[in-house]
Amino acid sequence: MKFTILKDELNESIQHVSKALSSRTTIPILTGIKLDADETGVVLTASDTEISIRSHIPAEREGEIIVTLEKSGSIVIPGKLFSELIRKLPSDHVEFTLLDSHHVLIRSGSTELQMAGLDPEEYPLLPTLREDRMFSISSDLLKKMIRETIFAVSTNESTPVLTGVLWTLNDGVLKFVATDRHRLSTTENRLDGAEGLSFHHVVISGKNLSELYKLLSDQSQQIDVVVSDSQVLFKIDRLLFYTRVLDGTYPDISRIIPQACQTEMVVPTKQFHDAMDRAYLLSREEKTNIVKLFTSGSNTIELSSSLTELGRMTEQIEAESITGQEVRISFNSRYMLDALKSIDSEYIHIGFTGPMSPILVHPREHQRLLHLILPYRTSG
Amino acid sequence: MKFTILKDELNESIQHVSKALSSRTTIPILTGIKLDADETGVVLTASDTEISIRSHIPAEREGEIIVTLEKSGSIVIPGKLFSELIRKLPSDHVEFTLLDSHHVLIRSGSTELQMAGLDPEEYPLLPTLREDRMFSISSDLLKKMIRETIFAVSTNESTPVLTGVLWTLNDGVLKFVATDRHRLSTTENRLDGAEGLSFHHVVISGKNLSELYKLLSDQSQQIDVVVSDSQVLFKIDRLLFYTRVLDGTYPDISRIIPQACQTEMVVPTKQFHDAMDRAYLLSREEKTNIVKLFTSGSNTIELSSSLTELGRMTEQIEAESITGQEVRISFNSRYMLDALKSIDSEYIHIGFTGPMSPILVHPREHQRLLHLILPYRTSG
Repeated sequence: MKFTILKDELNESIQHVSKALSSRTTIPILTGIKLDADETGVVLTASDTEISIRSHIPAEREGEIIVTLEKSGSIVIPGKLFSELIRKLPSDHVEFTLLDSHHVLIRSGSTELQMAGLDPEEYPLLPTLREDRMFSISSDLLKKMIRETIFAVSTNESTPVLTGVLWTLNDGVLKFVATDRHRLSTTENRLDGAEGLSFHHVVISGKNLSELYKLLSDQSQQIDVVVSDSQVLFKIDRLLFYTRVLDGTYPDISRIIPQACQTEMVVPTKQFHDAMDRAYLLSREEKTNIVKLFTSGSNTIELSSSLTELGRMTEQIEAESITGQEVRISFNSRYMLDALKSIDSEYIHIGFTGPMSPILVHPREHQRLLHLILPYRTSG
Repeated sequence: MKFTILKDELNESIQHVSKALSSRTTIPILTGIKLDADETGVVLTASDTEISIRSHIPAEREGEIIVTLEKSGSIVIPGKLFSELIRKLPSDHVEFTLLDSHHVLIRSGSTELQMAGLDPEEYPLLPTLREDRMFSISSDLLKKMIRETIFAVSTNESTPVLTGVLWTLNDGVLKFVATDRHRLSTTENRLDGAEGLSFHHVVISGKNLSELYKLLSDQSQQIDVVVSDSQVLFKIDRLLFYTRVLDGTYPDISRIIPQACQTEMVVPTKQFHDAMDRAYLLSREEKTNIVKLFTSGSNTIELSSSLTELGRMTEQIEAESITGQEVRISFNSRYMLDALKSIDSEYIHIGFTGPMSPILVHPREHQRLLHLILPYRTSG
């Protein structure tokens, strides 16, 4: 193996694949980044068995030479050190020469580095996915849907399937669901051209989705998503992002969402969020996060934290409208804050379905994005 | 106590004094911020016994009313919660009303907060310093002198005096010294108008100086410094910053600095820094930070890390000049990097005084800033 590569291109690819580098040294080969060089360019691969990322650096782009190949070959290089070193090299170009199966010579300007690598033959193969179950989604929409649900996944590893987000695709509508049993968030959007494909039980770990999130652009770049029973592959420009699918049966949520509300209110999102944020600060100090909400005839909503050793906070917010019965309910302010942060609309709709039934929160305009929060049992 | 205050002014002062808030709850009163309101304005105080910070918010500034006082008084409010809450209040104004000796009512817009405070009578008094030992220094120079020495203080608490920076003032020259026994950094500057004052043994903890550093402006604002045997007070605009002086006798360093060099070289600072930075990355992996430097007749300096399991790195730097004997020496790359980072000059002068004597590093133009690094014993 011998090739010269533009430092900045190499560096960018290293930063991308590094997100999949394993920090555990139980599988030493996975602490490395694999380099494969051939006439099409250089491919970098990193994997921690949960996610795998592959980045292709083309030999040339728009007439600019990026990789000059003298001899094809592969090597696995210790990932963390490699990523720090390449960034700091003095020249715009970096030359790689394989000395023997385990050592590589890296040269850049007046810097010369002999590095012990690992055997590329030992590096695990990435899964091969049949591409018949594939759909496209724009990266900004995918980011939005992740942001709208990911906070509601369970952090409790005793039910692993709940640490993931459930994906379903049916009649061209992609739907995400996340729940930790105390709250539930769900969002759905119609995808053009996905009518022919359907799946009902693909659960992707919240941690893996948050790594994917970091790689996605805020632009409306098209992402191809390939779904198999055990893996999902995201094709992002020159990057391939593989994530494992979680085992286990996701609970049936169809009967959890109540249909009838006893009280409904429309509230300005920002004011409600800011008041909740202050109430949360005080409720957090007592570790329960309990906030009380009540109405009393007018359009004024009162929020209050419980009276504790530290004190008591009350907030008043003017609702746009309140219809139905008076409300007197307690809930987790952190859950409400998380839900509010995911809503862009100027006004939210809050529905109360009973003293021990879920509170429904969604944008005033639609229910494609819907959050459920279970209230606390109140004393008196 | 009852007053109304501009939120932004209060918030700025809270952020300043919060740097002295104690995180330990062994002295509960010190987890609070003390507020004293009278006709001159509001004074905030925080202290962790090591440092104390006091901020004065004037009743008015340039015709703008900042504090409207109805009744003087004092209260101590839990610091962390207070600082988070004030920032998030909805209105530009905040009203404080003392309800009884332990409770305060805080109102802003539609937010109302009853908070349990602490008894201001229990709050420790700040030290009273005689102002006859006072000098002035511009804040940018003070910051520079701190930055040039603070990294060299010892982190070993077994000799507490070495965890501080030694300050001396003599014939109008302010001098800082810091050492951890393996390296030493010293810087001195002439101060106008300080000729009449001298002191020889004021040691201030590196931790406290780094808190002071954060409060100092990069502008050439004049700071008054009041020196006593047990405390040093910095007057920064409307802020008072008190730091304790460390006990113990600082070692005599006058005989440590060698006068004669066997080899002297002038090297471009940036190239030398960048090469050292790369060599450090590899040497860090073996935990020793050892880097070798050697010359061989020409003006080329070679740096190399030791050959380890991971590999070996060599760097070549062209010196401006090398005079004297050939050099072959090993030292701690982290210490050299720290020294290089503190030097603004385009070229540095490095002096080698013998195989087991200190390496001297200073800007080419002067020796007012001087770093000593003890070499490692080399094998062969």
